[in-house]
Amino acid sequence: MKLPWVLQKNNIARIKGDSLLIGDRRLYPFERSFVTCKNVEEIASALKEMVTQGGGPLQVALTTLRLIANSPLAEIKRSAELLSNSRPTNTTMRRTLVAIVEKLERHPSKGRGDYLNALIDKIEEAYDQDYLAMGSFGSALLKDGDVVLTTCFAEHSFILSLIKAQEEGKRIKVLVPETRPYLQGSRLTAPSLDEVGIEVEVITDAMGAHFMERGEITHYMTACDVVAMDGTAANKVGSLANAIGAAYYQIPYTNFALSPDTTLASGAGILLEERDGSEILEVRGIATTLPTLKGRYPSFDKIDPKLITNIVTPKEIFAPSEVGEAYR
Amino acid sequence: MKLPWVLQKNNIARIKGDSLLIGDRRLYPFERSFVTCKNVEEIASALKEMVTQGGGPLQVALTTLRLIANSPLAEIKRSAELLSNSRPTNTTMRRTLVAIVEKLERHPSKGRGDYLNALIDKIEEAYDQDYLAMGSFGSALLKDGDVVLTTCFAEHSFILSLIKAQEEGKRIKVLVPETRPYLQGSRLTAPSLDEVGIEVEVITDAMGAHFMERGEITHYMTACDVVAMDGTAANKVGSLANAIGAAYYQIPYTNFALSPDTTLASGAGILLEERDGSEILEVRGIATTLPTLKGRYPSFDKIDPKLITNIVTPKEIFAPSEVGEAYR
Repeated sequence: MKLPWVLQKNNIARIKGDSLLIGDRRLYPFERSFVTCKNVEEIASALKEMVTQGGGPLQVALTTLRLIANSPLAEIKRSAELLSNSRPTNTTMRRTLVAIVEKLERHPSKGRGDYLNALIDKIEEAYDQDYLAMGSFGSALLKDGDVVLTTCFAEHSFILSLIKAQEEGKRIKVLVPETRPYLQGSRLTAPSLDEVGIEVEVITDAMGAHFMERGEITHYMTACDVVAMDGTAANKVGSLANAIGAAYYQIPYTNFALSPDTTLASGAGILLEERDGSEILEVRGIATTLPTLKGRYPSFDKIDPKLITNIVTPKEIFAPSEVGEAYR
Repeated sequence: MKLPWVLQKNNIARIKGDSLLIGDRRLYPFERSFVTCKNVEEIASALKEMVTQGGGPLQVALTTLRLIANSPLAEIKRSAELLSNSRPTNTTMRRTLVAIVEKLERHPSKGRGDYLNALIDKIEEAYDQDYLAMGSFGSALLKDGDVVLTTCFAEHSFILSLIKAQEEGKRIKVLVPETRPYLQGSRLTAPSLDEVGIEVEVITDAMGAHFMERGEITHYMTACDVVAMDGTAANKVGSLANAIGAAYYQIPYTNFALSPDTTLASGAGILLEERDGSEILEVRGIATTLPTLKGRYPSFDKIDPKLITNIVTPKEIFAPSEVGEAYR
């Protein structure tokens, strides 16, 4: 199963000489270009500035560690901390980096660079296996003729689910809300699905309930940036409105969770990133209103477990109430 | 109470020589410019192309009739039909024009032009009174400290409610979703509220439920383009998602209905305008995705009466179930 261009590892992050190149998701699909970062400070800034998003920062962090694999341990620890702090809501990157640093601390300094590279190879392989497993679970939830609503860019597990369903002969259509302000839906999800041959229609963020009311949506599916042990999920702002709509119209809501966060007992501990409100007063550099007005940009929704039908993990498809038991 | 610039009659439509000038809401607040129409065909096209919207077309239609007041009756009837067909969902314009034409048919041809102008004076005065009455009712529903979520551009009755509440010493804040694709929220509602001194924050269309979940919203208020006799309302797409959210979080939803449609027994008869899907693939002329992708643009939501708390009319504040009785 070939992933669309945006999700290919080499297009998320790659090393070139002493620099790290990050695929610039802010410009895709209009340009396939990369931001060049010369040090970890620049990489952390790029993550803050949304050069990549969703699962992108994790891949960037792993590739960054490869770039600095032979640096002193203190420098690696400092870098891991800098990267972790760049995006507070999605904790997979932080938890992966913490686990790596712990392993490095137990390893003698001689050969530490090679050890780190081998470790990252293993981690990447494991995530690839996880994505494939989630793709199989996700595909099993879909039937021929389904029309799926999504939000933002649900990446590997979601897109692999659709590719697998398609390979199994199921015809699926996906309605993709554009996902303001950065348009991840219209710029990343829609072209990526189109690229792999899935039928796709772009809508605005306001239209999810509209198409549910008309009976056009049979399934709501999103990734999530974090899932707590009580089944509370956080995902791109707008996910909650559609989750409430799906519950109202009795449409299943499936959440793809690569790595439920065992450090979070409940949703109360989820940290929701609040970005600069001025970011929503423009689209691709064009003003949407007077610059003197105040905007607000909470980037993530917290979604009550009772609004979620299925949580697809690499282990299995769970009900939200089962996640804690399975992962604790 | 002074209305904001966009809602002043002269800025919606004005006669200049043989032409009608329509205030171009697509360019506001970046420009205060007018589209010049030399005949009724051009006026109907301008309405189709969203030069003005919401209650704007009604004011344009009335001013158009003034422009052609001395034309033969057949020409006036043809014009009324052309204008009515330009925007199918909001039926106030059509019903007003039908009533005018019926009156004109009973009037002798001599002095018909003066009669028509006097008739329009009366109609405009009556609508102004209706707006003021609705502003008083709307204000009565608000209390000091309220934070109101709205959708699109709810115009006179909503803005007069806020101005009146403010005059009564109530501090109200309004959260305004930008309202894609034409950004009526960020371009019209937010600057207009700011102009009259109401505190305003611009959000994206995806964020209504988010702020409800955080307990920040105390009231959801919108205009509606049409209300049927069973209390079903139609309003800008996105209104339904927020109405469902408001019901879920037990927040009142108030609908401003200038003119419930007695010809519609139920919501089943409401005609929802479906616009060209390519309109959502851009913002102010800038592409949001690849032009080869398919977009969809249903402009209006149909809202079940059980999701509506109050329907503010010029007569009174009704529960949705009371509207039929009051207007039939």
